[in-house]
Amino acid sequence: MSTPIGLIAGGGQFPLLFTEAAQERKRRVVAVCHQNETQAELEQRADISCWVKLGQLGKIIRFFHEQGVRETVFCGTITKTRMFRDILPDFKGLSLWNKIDRKLDDAILRAVAGALEDEGIKVLASTCYLDHLFFPKGIIGKRKPSQEQLTDIRFGWKIAREIGRLDIGQCVVVREGAVLAVEAIEGTDAAILRGGQLSGSGAVVVKMKKPGQDFRFDLPATGTKTIDTIASVKGSVLAVEAGQSLLFDREAMIAAADRAGIVVIGVQEDEAGELIF
Amino acid sequence: MSTPIGLIAGGGQFPLLFTEAAQERKRRVVAVCHQNETQAELEQRADISCWVKLGQLGKIIRFFHEQGVRETVFCGTITKTRMFRDILPDFKGLSLWNKIDRKLDDAILRAVAGALEDEGIKVLASTCYLDHLFFPKGIIGKRKPSQEQLTDIRFGWKIAREIGRLDIGQCVVVREGAVLAVEAIEGTDAAILRGGQLSGSGAVVVKMKKPGQDFRFDLPATGTKTIDTIASVKGSVLAVEAGQSLLFDREAMIAAADRAGIVVIGVQEDEAGELIF
Repeated sequence: MSTPIGLIAGGGQFPLLFTEAAQERKRRVVAVCHQNETQAELEQRADISCWVKLGQLGKIIRFFHEQGVRETVFCGTITKTRMFRDILPDFKGLSLWNKIDRKLDDAILRAVAGALEDEGIKVLASTCYLDHLFFPKGIIGKRKPSQEQLTDIRFGWKIAREIGRLDIGQCVVVREGAVLAVEAIEGTDAAILRGGQLSGSGAVVVKMKKPGQDFRFDLPATGTKTIDTIASVKGSVLAVEAGQSLLFDREAMIAAADRAGIVVIGVQEDEAGELIF
Repeated sequence: MSTPIGLIAGGGQFPLLFTEAAQERKRRVVAVCHQNETQAELEQRADISCWVKLGQLGKIIRFFHEQGVRETVFCGTITKTRMFRDILPDFKGLSLWNKIDRKLDDAILRAVAGALEDEGIKVLASTCYLDHLFFPKGIIGKRKPSQEQLTDIRFGWKIAREIGRLDIGQCVVVREGAVLAVEAIEGTDAAILRGGQLSGSGAVVVKMKKPGQDFRFDLPATGTKTIDTIASVKGSVLAVEAGQSLLFDREAMIAAADRAGIVVIGVQEDEAGELIF
């Protein structure tokens, strides 16, 4: 029988994509689905699954032990704002929660990963079967950026890097050298909507991995939904760190961007700190 | 006849307070009111006034010249989001706008101040008659901060200083070491509401002057409305940089904070970078 792999699933399509890729490699996917987050479809696609509420760490560990899971990934989004409002920790979850000093995403996930590893369950990078989903370098749709847009991409990049360094968030929205929105805990889509509405039109969205972000956890991800959000506020650019974030449903995303006239660009920094496309 | 002083007024009570204080010092207040921003009451209180739309710099200069104004202040808030949506520059305003590289508050105001000074109109600090309104040091209501709240104040202070250094905004909302909201262009009240709603309760609000912020312009200001906003989302702390920001309607503000059980505290940094209250 094939070796099981654990999947601690949040929302979105990432857990489904992971499941498909893992099963192609003959892994038996043992999925933990989060209520109000994970798509119900995962229950059908995974080889076996159970549902938990956010914080039920003890239940996850028991389920993985029962299923012989020795390796797991974290995959998909957890609405971060639930952290303070909609959490139902079991005993194990609560005692862990109380040990975490700063309630930051990565600190929480690192603590959970540590608890799993104490139980003999190794946490792998969620991208371990999904290398083909990394955001590519360069302009990936039809629309080319203007000089003004390039200036804003460079400006937004600088700000986003600082915001990431401070462990605040992954995304900023800028226009003409003004910062319209900084993502904190509210999530990328909410930040895009806010900054885009304030801008009226022409907002430039820059999204990048936090420096030192743990690849085992929540990587920045973009897809058609991101483009739809930008289009809804007449935004003009999505610039994403190439090779450090995931791009879902690539073809549909490019088609949506081309229809809306949105520049989509994968950016990297060279050793001198200059941006290359 | 008394020497005139120009007042380029935004919204809120600050222009009214300035007018009263200047008139007590026998200055004749020549007010420029901004449509959709300035309280209509200013028209009655000022010695003479005219109404402009945002961007009508030429009209302001002509009015000041007619009235013999050689000194002016900027006073009160301009909804920053109008900058991209609701602006009606005249020729002078437009040619200035096109010369500004980064459309940041301070850059815009510095450019406007420069244009006024080219016309022989000096721009004074808006606080020139209002020293008594500076936010004091220490706990100014009944409620004392808990150890956890002090930890969050220190954390929020560090983040707010960086956000200011990047010229993004003046305010952050934190809780238990997580950044719930960063103010960019949307304004302090919107950031408090967003962060506070995400927090559920217990949000800690930290507001401070941007380093290098020009005292002639928009100083951070707080008042009863700030407390009402924090109370509406069950927030627990307002920490403000003492001596570098304005406190309006102090008695009503303290009463509101005491009613809502909100800690109000004026903070300073000593030379070692430690916070003192």
